[in-house]
Amino acid sequence: MNIPKSHPRFVSLSIREKIVKGYNDGLVAKEGLLAHGRGEAFDYLVGEKTTKVARYAIKAAAAKLLSAENPVISVNGNVAALCPKEIVQLAKAANAKIEVNLFYHDESRKKKIEKSLKKAGAKQVLGMNPRSYRKIGGLDSPRRIIDKDGIFVADVVLVPLEDGDRTEALKKMGKDVITFDLNPLSRTAQMADITIVDNVIRGMRLLVSACKKSKTAKNNFNNKKSLSSAISEIKNNLKRRGSLA
Amino acid sequence: MNIPKSHPRFVSLSIREKIVKGYNDGLVAKEGLLAHGRGEAFDYLVGEKTTKVARYAIKAAAAKLLSAENPVISVNGNVAALCPKEIVQLAKAANAKIEVNLFYHDESRKKKIEKSLKKAGAKQVLGMNPRSYRKIGGLDSPRRIIDKDGIFVADVVLVPLEDGDRTEALKKMGKDVITFDLNPLSRTAQMADITIVDNVIRGMRLLVSACKKSKTAKNNFNNKKSLSSAISEIKNNLKRRGSLA
Repeated sequence: MNIPKSHPRFVSLSIREKIVKGYNDGLVAKEGLLAHGRGEAFDYLVGEKTTKVARYAIKAAAAKLLSAENPVISVNGNVAALCPKEIVQLAKAANAKIEVNLFYHDESRKKKIEKSLKKAGAKQVLGMNPRSYRKIGGLDSPRRIIDKDGIFVADVVLVPLEDGDRTEALKKMGKDVITFDLNPLSRTAQMADITIVDNVIRGMRLLVSACKKSKTAKNNFNNKKSLSSAISEIKNNLKRRGSLA
Repeated sequence: MNIPKSHPRFVSLSIREKIVKGYNDGLVAKEGLLAHGRGEAFDYLVGEKTTKVARYAIKAAAAKLLSAENPVISVNGNVAALCPKEIVQLAKAANAKIEVNLFYHDESRKKKIEKSLKKAGAKQVLGMNPRSYRKIGGLDSPRRIIDKDGIFVADVVLVPLEDGDRTEALKKMGKDVITFDLNPLSRTAQMADITIVDNVIRGMRLLVSACKKSKTAKNNFNNKKSLSSAISEIKNNLKRRGSLA
């Protein structure tokens, strides 16, 4: 489909095309299409722009990544379809490893995701070698696999678009968790140490820039307060749009 | 997947299974999966229950359908996957016709939808015979087709989960439009005469009951006010959930 740039929903529709292409290419699961739809709805409510609160969370995330010993970026099908280049840039800027980690474990999908990351410039992609598999406790078998050289030994893990159970399991393992989640009420958003309530494409670009700039670590970030502000933002947008409609 | 009934999101996940099954069976388009995800997000914000405002809109919709000369229910892939039986029950209770009408026109998908409706008990399904095709003005070709014995001559059209452009086109043709839309800010929600801000499965069941009970037509329904109340409901839920989180 050719979407005219003048279309009021051009950006949202172009992003949707990326996810549908990712599905057609075998990177994205059916459930990933549904999850993307949920994200679209929350992005719409957030105003389809990076809010001030999100910018602040991005700065805190950059500081956390830069001060980590072993930062790891966890990549699933949707993330690989939406922003493979940004993932590679971020890994470089933050000196972080990249690990493929799927909610719906599937070897062939994993390989396609690895390929797309390598095409985008990734040198090393973890999570691919069964001999390196380790298990997270408290999760059923296909969802518990992590890489012994990646998330297993990481102190800080960036899990964009993650499932609540897995975020909880990572927290129980003592990891510092950074996430992108457009729903400030989700379990992942609530359990992470730093939640960036932003579209992953928009936010990841800003996170790359922040990692390139930032030198020192600030530590006065409060995720509860940040999420409260994100919720207020949505309420204000509803109010504004409701009165315009 | 076997979802335990105790799961806090049991109902939402069971509905998701219906839509994924509909996709696997060829009734639902890829874009339908994305659209369902958006619906899930708004249903979550509405509280995953039928609100008082929605009940009031359902009553008004029943009255409108019962007082119509030629009511028609427009069915797309998602609606056919989610509530085929309820559609057939409603057609009977409101003496309405059923027409298959797809945003992404596709003959083979249409036939599968017709088959599923007939399996659910529908005697007649319009929109299937190319010799009966008529066109709505103002839309690009594949989206403009309607049936000369159905929507073309209808005075009241129920279009659950409809696209904004098409709702606008139906309004321009002078139809009274009733819709189900969980996003009270959408163009369809804003342009329809009666918008039921509710999950289509929950709401359709209530609409069937209302049509069986109701005899007389009330006409003091105000869609603008109803949508404002729906928006307030979402704001209150955000406030409540935000403080619980």
